[in-house]
This record gives sequence, structure tokens and C-alpha cells, in this order.
Amino acid sequence: MPKFKVSYAPSVRRLPSYLLLAKQAQEHGDEYISGTLIALELSLEPIQVRKDLSITGIAGKPKRGYPVVPLISAIESYLNWDKRVDAIVVGAGNLGSALSGFPGFKQHGLYIVAGFDADPGKVGSTIHDSPVYPISQLAERIVSMNIAVAILTVPSANAQDVATILVSAGIKAIWNFTNVKLKVPDDVVVQNEDLSSGYAMLSMKRRIKSALMLDDAD
Amino acid sequence: MPKFKVSYAPSVRRLPSYLLLAKQAQEHGDEYISGTLIALELSLEPIQVRKDLSITGIAGKPKRGYPVVPLISAIESYLNWDKRVDAIVVGAGNLGSALSGFPGFKQHGLYIVAGFDADPGKVGSTIHDSPVYPISQLAERIVSMNIAVAILTVPSANAQDVATILVSAGIKAIWNFTNVKLKVPDDVVVQNEDLSSGYAMLSMKRRIKSALMLDDAD
Repeated sequence: MPKFKVSYAPSVRRLPSYLLLAKQAQEHGDEYISGTLIALELSLEPIQVRKDLSITGIAGKPKRGYPVVPLISAIESYLNWDKRVDAIVVGAGNLGSALSGFPGFKQHGLYIVAGFDADPGKVGSTIHDSPVYPISQLAERIVSMNIAVAILTVPSANAQDVATILVSAGIKAIWNFTNVKLKVPDDVVVQNEDLSSGYAMLSMKRRIKSALMLDDAD
Repeated sequence: MPKFKVSYAPSVRRLPSYLLLAKQAQEHGDEYISGTLIALELSLEPIQVRKDLSITGIAGKPKRGYPVVPLISAIESYLNWDKRVDAIVVGAGNLGSALSGFPGFKQHGLYIVAGFDADPGKVGSTIHDSPVYPISQLAERIVSMNIAVAILTVPSANAQDVATILVSAGIKAIWNFTNVKLKVPDDVVVQNEDLSSGYAMLSMKRRIKSALMLDDAD
């Protein structure tokens, strides 16, 4: 089975930013949004913007840019964000609660409809209007609620055990916020979300900026 | 001033995963870790691993791989993670609280030493042992506590106003978890953390996997 093309990843990661700008242009009543403007807004090179957006199949028009409504459709269709996806968050702590309340997700078709936690003190409460169930009900509720995506925010020590339950209950997509490299069958996709990656980027930028500022001072 | 090389970003994003594996190898008492093993663990091509790690200046040895202790030093030194950085989180809600308790950050030298919130009900409480102060004290405490990095988790509507205060108080690095494109002076670095990017990756992988599974069924 061919691997996911790693070279696509940065482009895919930037698609939500393009989508946000396109939606802002739509709210503003604009018919077109120029690639140059997008590049400026996101501090990218215009050629990078064209390359990124080309993976969705859309092309800009000379002098006018991208037609806003088709651009939105192209990105949402490419990411399957034009269909509703029901998800659960496993681990109803601060991170799980923050994710369930993240305003952007519903706009992308992602509905976090329930939380699960091992802590009896959390069971019966709600996280952003979604009920929190005991983790013992995980498998049965995944089936009865027709859940497609599980978001994993449990402590690392429990991550693999919970992932195994998720998979046996039929989950095919896990968004993994733990730092555990999960072992799952070949037909299950895992997206590892490492908050340290963002901090690595910030650290790198700080280092580069300091070096440039020293240069400027010379 | 030259731009940050966008082409470096994916490599930098992966460095924390390499660091984690190297530290696990160290705990395990291994002297070397092979690039092939790293590639296998992270589902990457071996050549990608070599390319990523080369930016830190380290080179592997034929048949043995990377020396574990120098590998750890090379990554930490490249990211400046061998020095302590004091940070604050502005917005002490679920996300701010989750970040302040994230176990990986201290290992990378990032210490979240205080939180700030506009809600008087949160002021005086703690988030993972760090005190929460009123947002009115932001500027004075940034100076007195010698804060280098601000993590922004306020509602989008307040993001620019808070960023302006941060900059005027001397903050040069903002880790921005809002979806607002912040306007800051040229000497301030901003790392935008968009949780939708990770969801875009997961969505893309689901789409590819479905297509492959259909192929397999043919």
C-alpha cells in the first residue's frame, strides 16, 4: 500500500488558513480573492499559494485571482469537510474540554458529540454541551452513536489500551494528542498531534530572528 | 530581511519526535539509534530522517546510526531547548490550563510560570501550580518576571488588543492559539497554532485510506 505523500503535508496543513481567508472574503462580498493577497496575509510566497491550492484542483484567473465560492467548495470537498463527521473525545480533562469547545471544528463538519472519562467525578457532567460517559461504555456507544473519529486526550499510560478498545469498536480514525506511537491495524488512520512541534517552530523562529537582529546591529 | 524558509518547517516540526525517540533510546541504555529504526517508528522514509536531522548538524555513522547523546544535544542546541525559557499563558480557560500542564514542555526548557485572565473568578486560582493574575497586571508582571514567551489563548475578539499589550511590554515571541492574524512589529515572532491544520491532515488521510480500501476491494 502506498504511503501518504509526506511532501503534501505542509500544503494540507495550510488549507484551513486559505479556507478562513476565502470565507472572510465571502462575508465581505468579494467575488475574487487574489493569490498575492493570500500570500501577503499568510507571509508566504505567491508561488507557494498557487502550488498549495492546486492540489484541490482549483486554478486562479490572471489579474483576478481565485473565485471565492468555488475556492471554498474546492477546499471543503478536497478535505471532505462538506460532510458532517461525528466524533468523540476520550479523556474529558482540560484539553478534551478545550477541543470540544473549539469554534472552528463545526465549521469544518466536525461535531464532538460526547466525551468519555475514567473519572467517576466527570461522568454525568458536560463538556461544551456534550455529555461525558464512563469509559466502560466506550465500545457500545461508538456503535450506537455511529462515531467516525475518536480524539484521544487520555494520559499517555492509558493511550494504547484505549486505542485498542477504539479499534475493536470499529473506529477507523484516531486524532492522537498523546505522545504515544499507537499500534493500530493498517486500515486505521492516526493523526499525531504533538504540541511540541509548534513550540519547535516558535523556538526556531526566535533563534533566526535573534541572529538577524544581531546582523542588523552590526 | 530574509523570510523564514518555509521548506524547513516540516523538518523542524518533526524534530521533537526524533528527540523523544533519542531520549527513549538513552533511557534504554542504547549508545546508537539507527536512522532506519527512527524511520520505521515514525512512518517516514529513511532518507527523510537523514535530511531532517542534517539541519541540526549531526551525521549518522554507517551501520551504527546516530550516537544517542550527541543526537539529543544537537536537537536541543538547534532549538535552543537547552536553556530555560519563562512563559505566560494569557487566557486561563481550558486550553490555557491544558497547555500549562502539558508534561513535555518543561523537558524542552519551557516553563509556564503564570496565567492571566479577564475573568475575576479565575484570578487568584492556579493552573497546574501557576498563579492566575488579572489581565490588568500583564505589562508590569511581564517585566518583573522577565517573561520571554507569551502563549495566547484568549477569545479571538480580544486577541489583537492583548497582543498589542504584550508587544508594548517587550514580548518578542507569541505562540498564538487564536485564529486571528496578529499585527506585530517586525522584531516579534509569532507562531500560529491552528488546530484545524491537524484536522485537515486527519481528513486527508481518511480520504486517501478510503480510496485505497476501495482499490483493495476491487
